[in-house]
Amino acid sequence: MLSRMTLEQFAEALAAPTPTPGGGSASAQAGALAAALIQMTCDLTIGREAYRAHDEAVRAIRARSEGLRRDLLALVDRDAEAYDEVVRALRLPKGTEAEKHARSEALERANLFAIETPLATADACAALMGMAAELAGKGNINVVSDLGTAALLSYAGLRGGLLTVRVNLKSVADEARAARLRERVRRLEVDAERLREEALTAVSVRTNGR
Amino acid sequence: MLSRMTLEQFAEALAAPTPTPGGGSASAQAGALAAALIQMTCDLTIGREAYRAHDEAVRAIRARSEGLRRDLLALVDRDAEAYDEVVRALRLPKGTEAEKHARSEALERANLFAIETPLATADACAALMGMAAELAGKGNINVVSDLGTAALLSYAGLRGGLLTVRVNLKSVADEARAARLRERVRRLEVDAERLREEALTAVSVRTNGR
Repeated sequence: MLSRMTLEQFAEALAAPTPTPGGGSASAQAGALAAALIQMTCDLTIGREAYRAHDEAVRAIRARSEGLRRDLLALVDRDAEAYDEVVRALRLPKGTEAEKHARSEALERANLFAIETPLATADACAALMGMAAELAGKGNINVVSDLGTAALLSYAGLRGGLLTVRVNLKSVADEARAARLRERVRRLEVDAERLREEALTAVSVRTNGR
Repeated sequence: MLSRMTLEQFAEALAAPTPTPGGGSASAQAGALAAALIQMTCDLTIGREAYRAHDEAVRAIRARSEGLRRDLLALVDRDAEAYDEVVRALRLPKGTEAEKHARSEALERANLFAIETPLATADACAALMGMAAELAGKGNINVVSDLGTAALLSYAGLRGGLLTVRVNLKSVADEARAARLRERVRRLEVDAERLREEALTAVSVRTNGR
């Protein structure tokens, strides 16, 4: 399991010229780091006198960030499994008509799994970006740079996940489904840029004490 | 050592409400993932007939990415050590004039170390962003989404490192030195946005086959 590797081993595995792990797993890992930094910010905010007004909102963000960290660590592994499944389907025999049919069905299923997985990473990272932007105004000012880093890491995880989705979408045979997914990717890309601006501006305002 | 932790343990350590590890270590980790994906892209490009014209350039990028991966993994650890040093200096006694003087000297040294470390992360990530942008035109098209993810991760590492530098710069007593460092941070921030645009555009052009 990738999530049980050390940071050194995981970087080594990513660097290897093998089909997995790749950008999808790295994006999920970036998201997990973002979730962790958001949780840390919450724990350094909750219960402090200066931030009492935001206590309830910050507690809610904390609970969600802890769940998303676990989800994203699981997605590090699942992204590699999904792509391995595509490779297995590609290697199925295609001698007879029946084999060809079985292979193309297995491939379509594997391709959809290889899209859903980085899309789940992108969705989780979009949620984290929203949480980072909200916390930028409500969290402990002493860790505002950690929070900004969380926004940047979730941005990387979101757009990185979407790059993987876009590439894998090319192999989907069901054109109507592909068109719906492309539209969803496009909307998430727009959200990503808006949330990046929003979070970085909020962090910069807090950092410079304005 | 943080770089010997598993991905799960490292995320857990980041999430803990302790001074280290924080955004600086997470930024260096993002950079190490970017370096790994760049090396993978190079290894899937070198020696392939279709990319023969770029062989020499890609080999040079590969060698640099491998070195930067090791540097950035070391910076994951060093960033936490640097901040721990600041915390230690803050706890030094300040009863007598001599103690006050020794403490403020130790603190200034520690603060500068806590700036140099994330600045080294930012510099390494800026180099990786340039390499990703160059590779987007020269690397194996089959892994262009991994390369785009590398650009996004090095962007997060670069700007995340600079956020840490900016916050720590406030504690530097030597005003002339602080002003020089602030100017360097500002220039790297501008570079980061330019390189992000450049790399993502190049990746998008390759992904859409235009």
